[in-house]
Amino acid sequence: MSDKIVPVGVSARHIHLSKEHIAALFGEGYELKPLKPLSQPGQFAAEETVQVIGPKGRFDTVRILGPARKASQIEISRTDSFQLGVLAPVRESGNIEGTPGLTVIGPAGEVTLERGVIVAARHIHFHTSEAERWGIADKQLLRVRVEGERAVVFENVIARVSDQFALDMHIDTDEANAAGIRNGDKAVIVE
Amino acid sequence: MSDKIVPVGVSARHIHLSKEHIAALFGEGYELKPLKPLSQPGQFAAEETVQVIGPKGRFDTVRILGPARKASQIEISRTDSFQLGVLAPVRESGNIEGTPGLTVIGPAGEVTLERGVIVAARHIHFHTSEAERWGIADKQLLRVRVEGERAVVFENVIARVSDQFALDMHIDTDEANAAGIRNGDKAVIVE
Repeated sequence: MSDKIVPVGVSARHIHLSKEHIAALFGEGYELKPLKPLSQPGQFAAEETVQVIGPKGRFDTVRILGPARKASQIEISRTDSFQLGVLAPVRESGNIEGTPGLTVIGPAGEVTLERGVIVAARHIHFHTSEAERWGIADKQLLRVRVEGERAVVFENVIARVSDQFALDMHIDTDEANAAGIRNGDKAVIVE
Repeated sequence: MSDKIVPVGVSARHIHLSKEHIAALFGEGYELKPLKPLSQPGQFAAEETVQVIGPKGRFDTVRILGPARKASQIEISRTDSFQLGVLAPVRESGNIEGTPGLTVIGPAGEVTLERGVIVAARHIHFHTSEAERWGIADKQLLRVRVEGERAVVFENVIARVSDQFALDMHIDTDEANAAGIRNGDKAVIVE
């Protein structure tokens, strides 16, 4: 039995916005209000939400995560993608070339994203110190097991290593629900 | 590499109804109209759908699967259960003691189910001949792998063996979406 135990963070659908899009949706010079900190240092869930509209469906309150990013990006589950009617591919965060867009509506305006809708590839954030201790390299693909009545081994879990990261595995709601786990449950790296 | 290859059937939310509830929802003496046959002999998706209403949400078109059963049963994903606001447990089909209920609405009336809402435990139907050839016993818990960019090993997959069954693995939409697979894809029994 491996002793490489990792806490699991379940990511519900959310959006990252560029400064330009924050201005378009909330008004010139608007600053997001942090609601609560996330597991990764400096990242936060904002008080603000937006409406997201696809060809087949919509979500009225999609949480914004801050701070602002270089490019806007919407992370949804595959279940969400069917509901919206958008063919979102599984991608690493930031890799949005060739992905579909969506319409986003805020209190001060609306933006049509040309790209940025993804299903986030499951991954684990490692601080450099843990990665070294456990012999894990950046970009390595891992197998990670979750226990319980819906026990699952997730393959192709991407290791992301940085001295800016805190140990946390990120999966989406489909993955969490398929494995019967909740935010804060534990997973074990099996190889 | 195992050669125990099984086709996967993805179950979207659906309902099985008792004769009494078909009468209450569609009228006395009503007979379900088969729309298309399912993988298991004699089972069919009906033309008819019903509305299902929970404390937090509703689904307007939930497919009925026929023929009529002894007890009504609604099978949903965990994602659906959050949307409806119903704490549906993971159960084998037919094991509905102590499960929550829901309100069901049809064209001729409405029924409040006292129980029957479950998240179906993933399982494989085996014809007796395959089970014998592969050395698999009824009720055995299996590990089953699905390939691809979201490759997953599902544990605790229940074997169900009968000479009335055709080989098929049944998972729900959360499980299918988490594993990036579609109806008709293949899975491999790994032990």
